[in-house]
Amino acid sequence: MVLSLCGRSLLLLGPRFLHGSARHSGARVAVVLSGCGVYDGTEIHEASAILVHLSRKGADVQIYAPDIPQMHVIDHSKGQAAEAESRSTFAVDGETCKMNKEVERVLQDFHKAGKPIGLCCISPVLAAKVLPGIEVTVGHEEDKDGKWPYAGTAHTIKALGAKHCIRDVCEFHVDQKNKIVTTPAFMCETELHHIFDGIGAMVKGVLKLIGK
Amino acid sequence: MVLSLCGRSLLLLGPRFLHGSARHSGARVAVVLSGCGVYDGTEIHEASAILVHLSRKGADVQIYAPDIPQMHVIDHSKGQAAEAESRSTFAVDGETCKMNKEVERVLQDFHKAGKPIGLCCISPVLAAKVLPGIEVTVGHEEDKDGKWPYAGTAHTIKALGAKHCIRDVCEFHVDQKNKIVTTPAFMCETELHHIFDGIGAMVKGVLKLIGK
Repeated sequence: MVLSLCGRSLLLLGPRFLHGSARHSGARVAVVLSGCGVYDGTEIHEASAILVHLSRKGADVQIYAPDIPQMHVIDHSKGQAAEAESRSTFAVDGETCKMNKEVERVLQDFHKAGKPIGLCCISPVLAAKVLPGIEVTVGHEEDKDGKWPYAGTAHTIKALGAKHCIRDVCEFHVDQKNKIVTTPAFMCETELHHIFDGIGAMVKGVLKLIGK
Repeated sequence: MVLSLCGRSLLLLGPRFLHGSARHSGARVAVVLSGCGVYDGTEIHEASAILVHLSRKGADVQIYAPDIPQMHVIDHSKGQAAEAESRSTFAVDGETCKMNKEVERVLQDFHKAGKPIGLCCISPVLAAKVLPGIEVTVGHEEDKDGKWPYAGTAHTIKALGAKHCIRDVCEFHVDQKNKIVTTPAFMCETELHHIFDGIGAMVKGVLKLIGK
């Protein structure tokens, strides 16, 4: 499973949303998304990059997302919340944030089954919340040069009882024991191709754990 | 200019829609999009691939799209038109299709100025309509194996007075005289990474014409 949950809201994102790609025999991978758009769902470049890299590796991909109403909607022409009261429970509650029960169950089931899990951007927070003691990265722990505006997330991950490993945007971290692969992606303010390459490294790491 | 107009409807697609990427010094490129979604606008993987390849080449990118109401909207959870009366003028009128006057003017101005123009997927039809006698590709001219479901588009391009050059999805065609670079992209039903690579070839071709 490759989890890409940049956003806080969840909605159905069926295969029709993203242009289809012919199937290959190979690793069977579930890609879990959380809506569309950096402000109210999965960052679309991350979603596309994950699917490009999985396609190149011949993976048999199915895209999933919880089928529930979106928590809040963004006017992308303004980059502003369309509803003033819109809130992310992570933004409001930090480590005590609530998360979708279905996503929580899927993460626990995949972990119990010993199936590799890949997570990018801010989604390692969700795994840290439901899988105590795991090792993940969301990049750097301090924003010295403006490249890591969400560096505080690493401290939330520690507060949740997980181990945070500092990595750069093109790097990834593998928790061999728990079979969890993470990469910072857009937790870093950088050029788009670095995000693409970091996600490629994460996908490669997940498929290596599958033995593909 | 790199033109990605898979769809038939046009709407404002500002930089906020796509997660920002730090600027580089390098070629100055305008990316013209036409909404979001394979059914009602620019195919999102094509848009992301164009920006990833331009980022890797250090291009200074600005994203543009005409600021007009969307002609029709798709319910992406069903892949169906949200409005029954929705129509694409290209789908209805073929070579006599109407096109946005601003896009027509931009294509003609860039061509007159001798600035390279890149087009992918079905957008070469628009250039063929306003720039008579150009050479472009939208892939194959016959759908022998189900990989080229939109092969009829090549005949529309010929009917418009342009020359169609058969190319595979990972290839591109350069009209040296008119400085126009085209690639089939999702005119071909194939694996996503082939689309990504074909668009990379187009971007490389455009930047070579710029001298970058």
